Amino acid sequence: MCTAILCSLFVISAVFADDDFETILRKRNNLLQEELNMMFGSDIMLSDSEEQANKIIMELKTKEIDYGFGNPHHFNFSKHFFEYNDEVKDTELFKLIKAMPKGAMLHAHDTGILSPDYVLALTYKDNLFVCFEEDNINFLFSLETPTASCKTVWQSLKEARYSSGNIEKFDAALRKYFTLVIKNPNQVYTDINAVWSKFQQYFIVTTPLFSFKPIWEQYFYDTLKALRDDNVMYLEIRSVLPTLYDLHGSKYDTIDTAASYKKVLDEFMEDYPDFIGAKLIYAPLRSVDNNTVKEYLKIARELKKKFPDFFAGFDLVGQEDLGAPTKEFLQTLYEAKDEFEYFFHAGETNWYGTSSDENLADAIILNTRRIGHAFAITKHPLLIEEARKKDIAFEVNVVSNKVLKLVEDIRNHPLAVFLAQNLTVVISSDDPGLWEAEPLTHDFYVTFIGVASRHADIKLLKKLALNSLYYSTYHNKDKMVYEFEKRWTKFINTIVQDQ
Amino acid sequence: MCTAILCSLFVISAVFADDDFETILRKRNNLLQEELNMMFGSDIMLSDSEEQANKIIMELKTKEIDYGFGNPHHFNFSKHFFEYNDEVKDTELFKLIKAMPKGAMLHAHDTGILSPDYVLALTYKDNLFVCFEEDNINFLFSLETPTASCKTVWQSLKEARYSSGNIEKFDAALRKYFTLVIKNPNQVYTDINAVWSKFQQYFIVTTPLFSFKPIWEQYFYDTLKALRDDNVMYLEIRSVLPTLYDLHGSKYDTIDTAASYKKVLDEFMEDYPDFIGAKLIYAPLRSVDNNTVKEYLKIARELKKKFPDFFAGFDLVGQEDLGAPTKEFLQTLYEAKDEFEYFFHAGETNWYGTSSDENLADAIILNTRRIGHAFAITKHPLLIEEARKKDIAFEVNVVSNKVLKLVEDIRNHPLAVFLAQNLTVVISSDDPGLWEAEPLTHDFYVTFIGVASRHADIKLLKKLALNSLYYSTYHNKDKMVYEFEKRWTKFINTIVQDQ
Repeated sequence: MCTAILCSLFVISAVFADDDFETILRKRNNLLQEELNMMFGSDIMLSDSEEQANKIIMELKTKEIDYGFGNPHHFNFSKHFFEYNDEVKDTELFKLIKAMPKGAMLHAHDTGILSPDYVLALTYKDNLFVCFEEDNINFLFSLETPTASCKTVWQSLKEARYSSGNIEKFDAALRKYFTLVIKNPNQVYTDINAVWSKFQQYFIVTTPLFSFKPIWEQYFYDTLKALRDDNVMYLEIRSVLPTLYDLHGSKYDTIDTAASYKKVLDEFMEDYPDFIGAKLIYAPLRSVDNNTVKEYLKIARELKKKFPDFFAGFDLVGQEDLGAPTKEFLQTLYEAKDEFEYFFHAGETNWYGTSSDENLADAIILNTRRIGHAFAITKHPLLIEEARKKDIAFEVNVVSNKVLKLVEDIRNHPLAVFLAQNLTVVISSDDPGLWEAEPLTHDFYVTFIGVASRHADIKLLKKLALNSLYYSTYHNKDKMVYEFEKRWTKFINTIVQDQ
Repeated sequence: MCTAILCSLFVISAVFADDDFETILRKRNNLLQEELNMMFGSDIMLSDSEEQANKIIMELKTKEIDYGFGNPHHFNFSKHFFEYNDEVKDTELFKLIKAMPKGAMLHAHDTGILSPDYVLALTYKDNLFVCFEEDNINFLFSLETPTASCKTVWQSLKEARYSSGNIEKFDAALRKYFTLVIKNPNQVYTDINAVWSKFQQYFIVTTPLFSFKPIWEQYFYDTLKALRDDNVMYLEIRSVLPTLYDLHGSKYDTIDTAASYKKVLDEFMEDYPDFIGAKLIYAPLRSVDNNTVKEYLKIARELKKKFPDFFAGFDLVGQEDLGAPTKEFLQTLYEAKDEFEYFFHAGETNWYGTSSDENLADAIILNTRRIGHAFAITKHPLLIEEARKKDIAFEVNVVSNKVLKLVEDIRNHPLAVFLAQNLTVVISSDDPGLWEAEPLTHDFYVTFIGVASRHADIKLLKKLALNSLYYSTYHNKDKMVYEFEKRWTKFINTIVQDQ
């Protein structure tokens, strides 16, 4: 028995009294468990079959992690991507993730998706001319020897190849222009600008190749095909929409270029009606002045009018650290914000407090629908909260960030923090062709084993796929999710049956 | 005019109406400003003189960052520490930070603080014998040729040196055992275990050198001297407290070793009464069984009894990824928790969801006073909250984490996130002698320019210094802070006067 005051004192002392060890152990385990319960993907409920499949997948995953934990020199994910991108393809877990329906690809640049071998094969097409310069190469499709400026001479690529005396060597030299993959990446790509310089050279070199209208259409068709083969069902593709040309001297402007894409998409959808579709994000270069951005927006207006179902919105591309900061166009972009959905690249940097870092604030204030990369946002707790309130998704590209030298050991990628904080994330691949990765499988694979917690399981994978659908701009989400669920169930059943 | 209902509708529509551009721009800038206002150090109020000094310091800082932003291949902090540790010493900003009172050093291991040149000089002492083995070296002080086991032969170091024919070359070869600094660190230290292996070899090789009682005492005296020269006023030093020996065959146990430290400290305080003091954290090796931890705690009890003012508390050391996880000793440590202050290393890892990562939970549940490193804690939002509630400080060692390969580009160090979230941080240097850094200046310098926001200013520096006092276990904080403020004011006045 106790009086009211004494009783409350007892209660207080009980609260402050030492716990016994069992209680402390439970508290310790609960703390970690609660974190798992709030982690990205924790809201996914698994069916019995999914639980069974999960066991199989987690056995493969923890086996790999635990071996790496004991033998870090054998752990792939602390190494350069180029050291393991090929060999992992033979692993059971990679094959499972390849077979897994991965939903949508929401952050990719249209001419960086297919492999260097694919691009090399394009150089076997008729009417291609080449001009070799020191450390550079120019292409042009033409019926006659081009008269375009060139530091040496234009010659038929076919003739150059066959007169080289060694076709294999010739092609190997050519192929180097179509990939970032090399043997000693850390010695050659000594800093971010060095790798970006090579990265941008790819786009400069390949533009006259890809902007030949028949190739342009072929490349997009084959991209859709590659995505479908990688079990991706929908695409939102960023493009600068370059001027196209043909053999008869005709030029095709931005609107025509978009029309080409729309035409190819329609053909593809006819050939493969199980594919859900694709949309276009018009994403011209950011290193321009405000008047040029106004011109961009005029074009965007026309695109929206001409292709209301195909046009998704607007973005600006190019290395953020080199400018121009989004802030310079803030008013222009703000005034157009009710006309367009924005999908701004922002915070693709490891600087903190610079203009590239602060692009994150501009993207958010402009109500961007998604943020491309958002790599730097862990340093911005208020921006994270704003993004959460506005339901802005982060398009994370882990392999790209590794190859383009934002992060060295993938285990330090801020995606781990995003997942721990249950931020809205979709996984994409940026320019997988340049690092010889599958359209989406490598990024899912690296995320799952290399970045996420050892405890993160199939719920993470499913949530990543579902998010890519929810945060797409596709008009009929129900249909999309329904289609996805069908494929997912089939995927799960295959794993369980193959057991 | 409007009725009540209509009025409130107007108000609502005004709230939801589009802001004009000026408002949006203000919102954007406010968002970033609010983040600065909540950043680590933002609660420090600056005097007029401090504002003036701040301007000078920030001019130097932003000049360096802005140049690096435009020329990343010239930016030191994305490179290996060994590429710039020496050359930065000549910069004005480094000299300022060296002169700055930095408060206390709270995370350092006793035999890893002084430079390889200092250690090399010790090998010139009399009565030192050496036995060269393949890739290894044994030292022993002795009056006669030692009989201890050795794969080749024991010889007098003096004789070995002078009979080598080339003293410079001989010393250079010797010196390599006393430093991690090499020309191509990334090629030699290919993974964390490789660099830890070399790191641990240093401690194995130097133990018989340092545990010679006269050297042991000399080293500690000179450590205190080096700290004072680096404008550090107080130290909490971790030690495994090895058995010491002398030339007469006597051995000195853990308690004697601690007594040596206490004696040296008293001498030093007499010689330099402006130094505030030092305390000891008993930190034996973690790769042991539970019974050994019980033995450790027995020793700790004795230390506490014998040196009530000098003994600060208990920790366990060694590469966490290699075990043993703190969880294995949880009950033992829990049962002793009211007897000792704990200062556990935890989360010095880039694994996520492994036992080394989960040491963070054990440290926190054991009410550790501070956490050594806490590198992995950004992946644990609940543990961060718990640490905040319990007012646990993180002892961050940026340069150590770089050299020991937890992080490659220092701009990705989680400390940036700690600072953005205003977590309780102190900066220390772990084992600065092994990477040829000043006791504390390099770590402050790298933090200030390489890790913190471009906008982080002298408030950050002052808060780091003050935190090191507040989160120390020194009994008279008022005196300490008073002494610090005197020196700080002098430092500020010197900057302003030198202008």
